[in-house]
Amino acid sequence: MTDLEWIDGGITAVPGILASGLHCGIKSTPARDLALIYSSAPATAAGVFTTNRIQGAPVKLSRERLRGGVAQAIVASSGCSNVCTGEQGLRDAREMTEVVAKHLRIPEERVLVASTGVIGRYLPMDKIRPALPKLVKALSPQGGRHAAEGIMTTDTRPKEAALRVEIGGRPVAIGAIAKGTGMIHPLMATMFCFVATDLAVERDALQAAIRRSVGGSFNRISVDGDRSTSDTVVILANALAENRPLVRGDRRLRAFQQALDALTQRLAVMQVRDGEGATLVIDVRVRGAKTRRDADAVARAIANSPLFKTAMAGRDPNWGRVMSALGAAGAAVQEDCVGIWYGEEQVAAQGKLKEGVRWDRVKAELAKPEVTLSVDLGVGHAEDHMWTCDLTQDYVKINAGTS
Amino acid sequence: MTDLEWIDGGITAVPGILASGLHCGIKSTPARDLALIYSSAPATAAGVFTTNRIQGAPVKLSRERLRGGVAQAIVASSGCSNVCTGEQGLRDAREMTEVVAKHLRIPEERVLVASTGVIGRYLPMDKIRPALPKLVKALSPQGGRHAAEGIMTTDTRPKEAALRVEIGGRPVAIGAIAKGTGMIHPLMATMFCFVATDLAVERDALQAAIRRSVGGSFNRISVDGDRSTSDTVVILANALAENRPLVRGDRRLRAFQQALDALTQRLAVMQVRDGEGATLVIDVRVRGAKTRRDADAVARAIANSPLFKTAMAGRDPNWGRVMSALGAAGAAVQEDCVGIWYGEEQVAAQGKLKEGVRWDRVKAELAKPEVTLSVDLGVGHAEDHMWTCDLTQDYVKINAGTS
Repeated sequence: MTDLEWIDGGITAVPGILASGLHCGIKSTPARDLALIYSSAPATAAGVFTTNRIQGAPVKLSRERLRGGVAQAIVASSGCSNVCTGEQGLRDAREMTEVVAKHLRIPEERVLVASTGVIGRYLPMDKIRPALPKLVKALSPQGGRHAAEGIMTTDTRPKEAALRVEIGGRPVAIGAIAKGTGMIHPLMATMFCFVATDLAVERDALQAAIRRSVGGSFNRISVDGDRSTSDTVVILANALAENRPLVRGDRRLRAFQQALDALTQRLAVMQVRDGEGATLVIDVRVRGAKTRRDADAVARAIANSPLFKTAMAGRDPNWGRVMSALGAAGAAVQEDCVGIWYGEEQVAAQGKLKEGVRWDRVKAELAKPEVTLSVDLGVGHAEDHMWTCDLTQDYVKINAGTS
Repeated sequence: MTDLEWIDGGITAVPGILASGLHCGIKSTPARDLALIYSSAPATAAGVFTTNRIQGAPVKLSRERLRGGVAQAIVASSGCSNVCTGEQGLRDAREMTEVVAKHLRIPEERVLVASTGVIGRYLPMDKIRPALPKLVKALSPQGGRHAAEGIMTTDTRPKEAALRVEIGGRPVAIGAIAKGTGMIHPLMATMFCFVATDLAVERDALQAAIRRSVGGSFNRISVDGDRSTSDTVVILANALAENRPLVRGDRRLRAFQQALDALTQRLAVMQVRDGEGATLVIDVRVRGAKTRRDADAVARAIANSPLFKTAMAGRDPNWGRVMSALGAAGAAVQEDCVGIWYGEEQVAAQGKLKEGVRWDRVKAELAKPEVTLSVDLGVGHAEDHMWTCDLTQDYVKINAGTS
């Protein structure tokens, strides 16, 4: 295992990265609703976007620009997602990058854009346009927190993390900010994670690394990536660490991958913990599956089951709902092979209630803020897991509000 | 269209059908928790069961017995589903049919069994065993309502319906009772519908008819049939109408199918209306899809979207959440071809907010107890629909209770 050192701050913990965040009036509250991330050096850039067939104008524009493989800034807004807004939406997204590029004096093509919030409304450009020069002026090496605040919607706290890792004998920093409430579907259907590193890395290797990290982090929380219209994960690598650039197949990539995985997993769990109305995080671990795909399907079915999630809200160790969910996952399941554990305590064996369950231990596990549910399907050797949270009345309260 | 006449009552509106229901103590409340349906003449029988890989002992036993194609009684219990109970569960299910058969003086193989309630607990046979002879004694041609009550779990009201239809010149009755709260997943994962008719019909034709009816009724509500471990729909046809028996390909089957469809759809909508915590029914209609499968997938995605359902709880005509859900359905979708209506009022056109929406009309539609949401995908000619209900805080309250 690579030696990682967690460090203070988030994306601006990375050399050469400045950021800012401010309020321009997209949100009706005084909260920040604009964010800017800037790399003083042009950066190798890669990203992963939503697979929803309906995609926001910012996703369309950023995806296209990432084809070039180089970026230097990300401008983001919250409160309105600029999705289902047609040609006008594309013009607005482009204008945001134009104004930022002009004031940063960089080519427009090097600016990416992301918006989160209500679907189907136009961006209030009369408020955003005059605020963008101020956003550029506010850029600072301490601005990461403000940027993290500028992308929040129903998040109750900003999400950032940073670490240092040695790669090929050189210290490299990786920092990130994220947003998304990581509930069944992210509210207003968006999660963001913006990552920066001073590593020098070739584009294909960077793209492969971020894709793999997303698979083990944001795709492993019940955010259900493909349900959103704006999901965006972007990484900028500005090469200021002056290492010999990493290319595909480079053995040093392993250390980078491990560090990137640790960072994105930490942020993903932050999203679940801050899930809309959530009061606990559950790590749903599935083993003994016939295939990895089966393990994934079963973990996902349990993690997305409203009946399991509401039982967790009531701290009810209802393993019958787990059985019902796993039986409907479409995976190879044999009733009398299934075992279920809460923490270390087994509650079901061979598909039935286990005799002599120590319910006080189950209760103690459920009293923790992070609960582990383990399922052994007993028909193979594949495993996988998902992080999820409970489904509470507050979730409904938050989402039944006005649009 | 066949002439149907809705008549009072439920399953005992059918000649030769007796029923009863009583309380034996499976439930902690004084509510009825046992039900019995009996046909004085042996009946052709067919059924449709859950596709969950985990299936209750009663499902296993009844499915096996239905292979014979003849049944005369159905004994059902509520409060404990007898699922994930291994060999003991099978013995208990069999014993229920044995005792009933003995007191009815019919072969045990002609008795079907169904149980609904918590998963993973054994049936309290000490309470059930002595109550079964009383259940047989209580059988009456007016007992349909008691039987409907005996299968309720979180249902707030019993569900029954009956109709008369002319088939090949003869009046035929069809009656049914059902249970199931028809929410995202049925609570305790079970829905039942028991249907009886005095029609004379050959077994294969009956099986095809009930399968087709279920496809257009219980599979069209967001009960998500395959998620349950006990879902059971059974039909008994006792031939007392003395018509020339219907066989496959018989033209008279059309009238029977239409009547059966009308009956099962009425009961399915009753389930949605009584959905856990539900305050309104939404008919999600999708047209303009490339294929029927696409239309089904889109209707299902919207009907199961927590974000759409919570928006409905707040009477929020948030069409953006509809766009997000349909974009993630895995169907052929083109953003700028999509139109969305609440009732008769169009809110989105070409994938964007329509200009000049009369929001007062949208509001009036959402004030109704049954709302229609129509989506035109604009890429083909296939259509389908789903009935769903809103997702309220009460849903969570009901399901976060103790097991």
